[in-house]
Amino acid sequence: MSPASTLPLGMHVLLDLHGVSGAMLTDCPLIEQLLLDAAAAAGARVLGSRFHPFGPELGITGVLLLAESHISIHTWPEHGYAAVDVFMCGDARPMAAIALIRDRLGAVRSSVRKCPRGTGDAADSNV
Amino acid sequence: MSPASTLPLGMHVLLDLHGVSGAMLTDCPLIEQLLLDAAAAAGARVLGSRFHPFGPELGITGVLLLAESHISIHTWPEHGYAAVDVFMCGDARPMAAIALIRDRLGAVRSSVRKCPRGTGDAADSNV
Repeated sequence: MSPASTLPLGMHVLLDLHGVSGAMLTDCPLIEQLLLDAAAAAGARVLGSRFHPFGPELGITGVLLLAESHISIHTWPEHGYAAVDVFMCGDARPMAAIALIRDRLGAVRSSVRKCPRGTGDAADSNV
Repeated sequence: MSPASTLPLGMHVLLDLHGVSGAMLTDCPLIEQLLLDAAAAAGARVLGSRFHPFGPELGITGVLLLAESHISIHTWPEHGYAAVDVFMCGDARPMAAIALIRDRLGAVRSSVRKCPRGTGDAADSNV
């Protein structure tokens, strides 16, 4: 979002976490603090946040809006699953946020997809 | 986020838009209404929203938190570029949101990546 931006303009990282304890995935204050800590680890600046617990023993959905883009999380405790995405531009370090979230949630299994954004080409499938 | 969820648990769609007018990409009320209309088109329920304009002639960053996950947008008017992502679970229709956003912004070129989330496997690169 800076006139001096270089390509790609941002890095969007999708993190899938499996085998996470349901107790963590239903704890809204814990999840919000986790994302705040992840933003700090990445060197990002938080502009706002919104978290919503669906109810006792149910999932959480939440997002941090950042000056460098966003971090979101959506949890399915009944599946031990959390979907995270970290989108950052500028000097922020998305993989530092990813590492912190993965480590803290203690996933049995995880996968990461790195998606460069604003590359100036259209190499992806056009529809 | 329902106990009766089927796999994949959600669909995460990344939309890259190039050649969009800078006037649209700097208009925060327009961009917020665009995302609200996209959520409605998808049949999603908005839980909260947060939008931030970086200043006159500068980009916008914003997100809608949905009961079905989220929609975000980050704009670089100096590049005529917007990065959108639409993550939805349940019965919501992410591609309806994608189509509305793409059509309204009148991009010269666009690309879409569909990323199933919570598929139960780890087909993606593990790091």
